[in-house]
Amino acid sequence: MQEITYRPIGIVHSEIKSRSDSPVQAVYGQEMKGTIELFPEYREGLKDLEGFSHLILIFHFHLSSGFTLIQKPFLDNIPRGVFSIRSPRRPNPIGLSIVKLEKMKGCDLEISGLDIVDGTPLLDIKPFIPKFDTREGVEVGWIKYKV
Amino acid sequence: MQEITYRPIGIVHSEIKSRSDSPVQAVYGQEMKGTIELFPEYREGLKDLEGFSHLILIFHFHLSSGFTLIQKPFLDNIPRGVFSIRSPRRPNPIGLSIVKLEKMKGCDLEISGLDIVDGTPLLDIKPFIPKFDTREGVEVGWIKYKV
Repeated sequence: MQEITYRPIGIVHSEIKSRSDSPVQAVYGQEMKGTIELFPEYREGLKDLEGFSHLILIFHFHLSSGFTLIQKPFLDNIPRGVFSIRSPRRPNPIGLSIVKLEKMKGCDLEISGLDIVDGTPLLDIKPFIPKFDTREGVEVGWIKYKV
Repeated sequence: MQEITYRPIGIVHSEIKSRSDSPVQAVYGQEMKGTIELFPEYREGLKDLEGFSHLILIFHFHLSSGFTLIQKPFLDNIPRGVFSIRSPRRPNPIGLSIVKLEKMKGCDLEISGLDIVDGTPLLDIKPFIPKFDTREGVEVGWIKYKV
């Protein structure tokens, strides 16, 4: 099947300078701060965003090279299938984090509660909407005893 | 900034044959059924996934061509900034849906509760983990009176 090409819409700047400094998930990094630098050509698309407290960021794990289908997750010592874990070493290294929007000024969005390494290319910003983005009665497999 | 290239890991087959048949969001399509056809080379990565009831699917909006930075969302008549709405007509047409995993057999994953059009190229599967993927005290801007 043919390749799909995207172009970053901005860069995430953060206090997290390497993967080893990163909390395992954004939810564990509530004190972490950062800034989204949206490229100026997309600025108009930020209209109406400031009413949302939380954003879904979709980004490229630029430090990840290659993947294996079976890997040990951060939170366990047992190797697991890559689609059952949240490792950056995935067939398509696409990351997903929910962050808190603190302040917007021009093309700069101050955010907190993140796990994203400084310099990460940003692919999309979506508003986080609990009605759309949560579910009831969820079972969480192997991670049940880890979180 | 340089382009980023991904390759689909599979295809979503569904009862939804066109965008106009699609519920506005997966949460509104609980009765909708579909199947993920994972390409065989990724099969091993499905290990441990069956313990999870819900999956995050990241996919390419293949029917979307072009975008505008200000658009009317499905749920309102007032034009909004593209990053404050969930339209497929985005700078990078990346979709995100949480679906229910009903059954796995080989490379086929039966799913329900979806809003994904038949034939959509799939980029990633992640386990949905409420601890990581929900937040408290969320404000939802313009959509507050619509959902």
